[in-house]
Amino acid sequence: MAQKGILVVVSGFSGVGKGTLMKCLVERYSNYALSISATTRSPREGEVDGREYFFRTRDEFQTMINGGELIEYACYCENFYGTPQKYVEEQMEQGKDVILEIEIQGALNIKKKYPEALLLFVMPPSAAVLKERLEGRGTESPEVIDARLRRACEESEGIENYDFILVNDDLDVCVKQMHGLITDQRWRVNRNLDFINEIRTEIKAFSKGEV
Amino acid sequence: MAQKGILVVVSGFSGVGKGTLMKCLVERYSNYALSISATTRSPREGEVDGREYFFRTRDEFQTMINGGELIEYACYCENFYGTPQKYVEEQMEQGKDVILEIEIQGALNIKKKYPEALLLFVMPPSAAVLKERLEGRGTESPEVIDARLRRACEESEGIENYDFILVNDDLDVCVKQMHGLITDQRWRVNRNLDFINEIRTEIKAFSKGEV
Repeated sequence: MAQKGILVVVSGFSGVGKGTLMKCLVERYSNYALSISATTRSPREGEVDGREYFFRTRDEFQTMINGGELIEYACYCENFYGTPQKYVEEQMEQGKDVILEIEIQGALNIKKKYPEALLLFVMPPSAAVLKERLEGRGTESPEVIDARLRRACEESEGIENYDFILVNDDLDVCVKQMHGLITDQRWRVNRNLDFINEIRTEIKAFSKGEV
Repeated sequence: MAQKGILVVVSGFSGVGKGTLMKCLVERYSNYALSISATTRSPREGEVDGREYFFRTRDEFQTMINGGELIEYACYCENFYGTPQKYVEEQMEQGKDVILEIEIQGALNIKKKYPEALLLFVMPPSAAVLKERLEGRGTESPEVIDARLRRACEESEGIENYDFILVNDDLDVCVKQMHGLITDQRWRVNRNLDFINEIRTEIKAFSKGEV
């Protein structure tokens, strides 16, 4: 039963630990491919073009949009982010489960194009923990933290559109749970119609005494 | 996050090993309660009233229907089978995940009344294995085996209405998989709205500088 891979969208508040979660997932299990987004935002310290993101100018980004190269794109904190389609499709065809880390607007666009995509929203164990994590990172100004808190309010309005929440309290537990949720999808009835039809046809043959 | 239990419907071909699967599940994990069906069929050797089934006469069964005591009922091989509502609701309120082993007609009725119910269909690894198991039990006449094969054909037409298939090849693997599928449902967004709203309200308070 070689299956096409599963498309998984992961969203969650800034500071909730999505990056670490996905890094662990990919290191621990071999069935995943992380989609790399294109963005017009500036690289942070240590970020490498083609690893964390494809860093593009506004003009280059516009060319990708015009050329239909992006599955979805959205504007977040005045920068554009988008998902190049080619890599996602190739990996899924090879049976890899492809993880997209995108924000809510992009997630809903993905669900329209790929109704079978699994939408996961990573939650902090409490709002206080989220605030601590945002402040604790220490790399952002108070204005940026405030902007993220305001954005978190907006994003939290869309959680109902996701399939499952993941509570990132204990990282190890959360990684295992995420892996379980994704691999479960392989047993969805609509992903196994070939197998079901094969059994069905054979049972009919038995029932008619043909075998 | 005390949650109401999950309602799980398990169907599958006769001889596929549903009974053994559920017995293992209940022995191994403490979060399950098996619903006991009422039936008008005669007890098989070793079956006890109130353990395997509530064995009832046709008149008694009709009284339960009239009194609205059954969530669903259906006719299968000329006998009536039904699910008493009271036990199911009580167990779910206590947080137990309630398993109903019912056939397809009943399963679809459950889904209408409880749209969040999880519908699982147990498959044999192959049609040949199913035929062997049906013949190998040795307790049924060729006529009954033929009737089951014909019924299996009918039932297989409805598998598309289920959420997931379980392939019962290795019992231990199948039990673990079933447990995983069920417990994952606890993280469905629509089962965690209270928690989501709590976080949402607190983040809004932070964002407004109220805390």
